[in-house]
Amino acid sequence: MNYPGINKKYQIAHEPVSHRNRGMDLEKLLNLSNEYYIEKDIAIIYKKPTPIGINKVNYSNSHVSIKDAYFETQSTLDYNGIYQGKYLDFDAKETLSKTAFALANIHEHQILHIRRIIHHHGYAFLIIKMNNQYFLLPGNKLLYFIDHENRKSIPYIYLLENALIIKEGYNPPLDYLKALDIIINKGEMIYEN
Amino acid sequence: MNYPGINKKYQIAHEPVSHRNRGMDLEKLLNLSNEYYIEKDIAIIYKKPTPIGINKVNYSNSHVSIKDAYFETQSTLDYNGIYQGKYLDFDAKETLSKTAFALANIHEHQILHIRRIIHHHGYAFLIIKMNNQYFLLPGNKLLYFIDHENRKSIPYIYLLENALIIKEGYNPPLDYLKALDIIINKGEMIYEN
Repeated sequence: MNYPGINKKYQIAHEPVSHRNRGMDLEKLLNLSNEYYIEKDIAIIYKKPTPIGINKVNYSNSHVSIKDAYFETQSTLDYNGIYQGKYLDFDAKETLSKTAFALANIHEHQILHIRRIIHHHGYAFLIIKMNNQYFLLPGNKLLYFIDHENRKSIPYIYLLENALIIKEGYNPPLDYLKALDIIINKGEMIYEN
Repeated sequence: MNYPGINKKYQIAHEPVSHRNRGMDLEKLLNLSNEYYIEKDIAIIYKKPTPIGINKVNYSNSHVSIKDAYFETQSTLDYNGIYQGKYLDFDAKETLSKTAFALANIHEHQILHIRRIIHHHGYAFLIIKMNNQYFLLPGNKLLYFIDHENRKSIPYIYLLENALIIKEGYNPPLDYLKALDIIINKGEMIYEN
């Protein structure tokens, strides 16, 4: 593909293009990236449906419709799948704060889930959007912070030092598996409290 | 635990107890088994929420309620997770037929999903309830039948010959990972058309 007016180097190399995806929410960017990974036979990763509690259902003319329901909290993380034969499990979070990512964004049972996945030799992580950057925070770095720092939020500097920056591109819009490769190449994700 | 009137051998050995779980539906049995696996730190497997399409939502007093929605079809399989560091993906199906399992029970995109998971070195399978027995049909055996037999249903005899019988017990009610162990011990689940 050719984009007139854009420096050729950027077109080919898929270098980070600032603000390219601004305005598109994180979930949308990840869904597009996951579609790309499936199409290119790179990984099979899906977002789980939002859990719904149902109060009332109508049956009419063999048609079922839900007439009263409510959103429930996911007891796990939102995304999971398989990449290079490995089990992946992650969640996507956005924060408007420029200085810290509040741990209140992650539920207690999600932290427990991350512990379990790492313990079972899977790769658990968070994708965090902060200051118009996208970070992949490995689950073990998250758990280390929670277990060793008596703080209610993760400072931005901790992300800069412990998370991987996910480059934005045209397609996939967020190539987070390229960031994950760096972790996978180091070996299994290990956490010992 | 002690159950008066039940032969001690059966209590201890967790031998298959016929009709023990009769009346409980397959999904319930699998959810209980998955809870057992998590509690005992054996595997982390969850059923995905049923996908819902939403037409209308009400906002009142900071409370969100869904007032019109409909059930959507899962584009993947219902259950996935990690066991012995391996990615698992499966669906549960029941049939009342005593002679054959209709392939119409499995959607086209689910079959494609099974192909992809096996291709990416995961373990995909079906758990089928038929004739009051529970079978674990490995994904590669399912694909082989679909690709080589010009039939619209899988005969019961094919299950007897190619699937593994899942033993019923007290807890877990359906120890399907014990059946899966037999497959895992043979090595990777491979399918070549």
